[in-house]
Amino acid sequence: MILYGYSVSSASYRVRIALSLKGIEVTHATKQLRRGEHRLKDFLQVNPQGFVPALQLDNGQVLTQSLAIIEYLDDVYPQPPLLPASPADRARVRSMAQLIVCDIHPLNNMRVLQYLEGSLAHTASTRDAWYRHWIEAGFAALEEMLGRDASRGRFCHGESPTIADVCLVPQVFNARRFSVDLGAYPRIVAIDAACRELAAFASAAPEKQT
Amino acid sequence: MILYGYSVSSASYRVRIALSLKGIEVTHATKQLRRGEHRLKDFLQVNPQGFVPALQLDNGQVLTQSLAIIEYLDDVYPQPPLLPASPADRARVRSMAQLIVCDIHPLNNMRVLQYLEGSLAHTASTRDAWYRHWIEAGFAALEEMLGRDASRGRFCHGESPTIADVCLVPQVFNARRFSVDLGAYPRIVAIDAACRELAAFASAAPEKQT
Repeated sequence: MILYGYSVSSASYRVRIALSLKGIEVTHATKQLRRGEHRLKDFLQVNPQGFVPALQLDNGQVLTQSLAIIEYLDDVYPQPPLLPASPADRARVRSMAQLIVCDIHPLNNMRVLQYLEGSLAHTASTRDAWYRHWIEAGFAALEEMLGRDASRGRFCHGESPTIADVCLVPQVFNARRFSVDLGAYPRIVAIDAACRELAAFASAAPEKQT
Repeated sequence: MILYGYSVSSASYRVRIALSLKGIEVTHATKQLRRGEHRLKDFLQVNPQGFVPALQLDNGQVLTQSLAIIEYLDDVYPQPPLLPASPADRARVRSMAQLIVCDIHPLNNMRVLQYLEGSLAHTASTRDAWYRHWIEAGFAALEEMLGRDASRGRFCHGESPTIADVCLVPQVFNARRFSVDLGAYPRIVAIDAACRELAAFASAAPEKQT
């Protein structure tokens, strides 16, 4: 399989963590987003959306959208599972992942920041305030959700990583890059630290990519 | 079960379609978003994110995030299935749903439009151009994806509705509300029409809610 990705793309980072947790080897094809390589015609043949990550299967089929790719990996390589067994627990884990993947990250995507600075002519300072605003709104709600549920252990749900953790760690990475004050989110900070102690998370980190 | 929702919330609309396709009856609790009812303390007790939809199960547990709720319904009430059987097909359907749920809708959410008009002091015209921009970017990619795959039938994937269709119809509804020209997306328009011919989709429409 070929993973089209980019080191600091947090959606790519999620898929790298999932692959690493499951011990799956893939070929990495890097798209330099800052140079616009994802908008070139050859990559639009791979993914019409022009986004990374995209996972090309051995039969040539291309999967897109990080959570769809991760659920595919969990279907085909079930060990270790990245979702709990009961439907309500699965819903809880998916909802935490989606809080990040739907309600934080798309607002802070490069194309959105470019629209703010380009079409809307905002300054870098306004752009960064925007960036932090959506992280803070999402993390405040997630911190509250984590505190309400007794089933939380060292990770977002229980004592082993799930797709919620796979999404959380790259989002915390982004928050730190943009100097978000994480003091109000002690549960999130503790889970992020517990995850990053695991080799599978550590090896997927942006600074470990070539 | 109690569904906290709002008639024109497209995320609520998705869940209404899924419930309706599966023939599940719930109690509807309406939150008037325009009056800010979702930001009131009693509802934040239900969902710390203050978003609709939220589905309260009979045991009191609350599920949030529309796709997580819909996958829960598909796990617990498997007929008719809203995801295909093979992992790669499931990934394809989920990726189309997520293209809408992650890459279009969150950018056009009410809180984002309010930030553009409030904190960033943009006009209604700039706000509406923003709204249309993200729909057009997403629909162009989705239209291309739909055209590439021979497994498409009357719906996004095959001859029965999946979660991709459940997400598409409310997004087309939003596009029409904001006068997006749909002429460039004939496959999307045809699928939307095929879906809305079904009683389950028709009964879930915003104008049918009390």
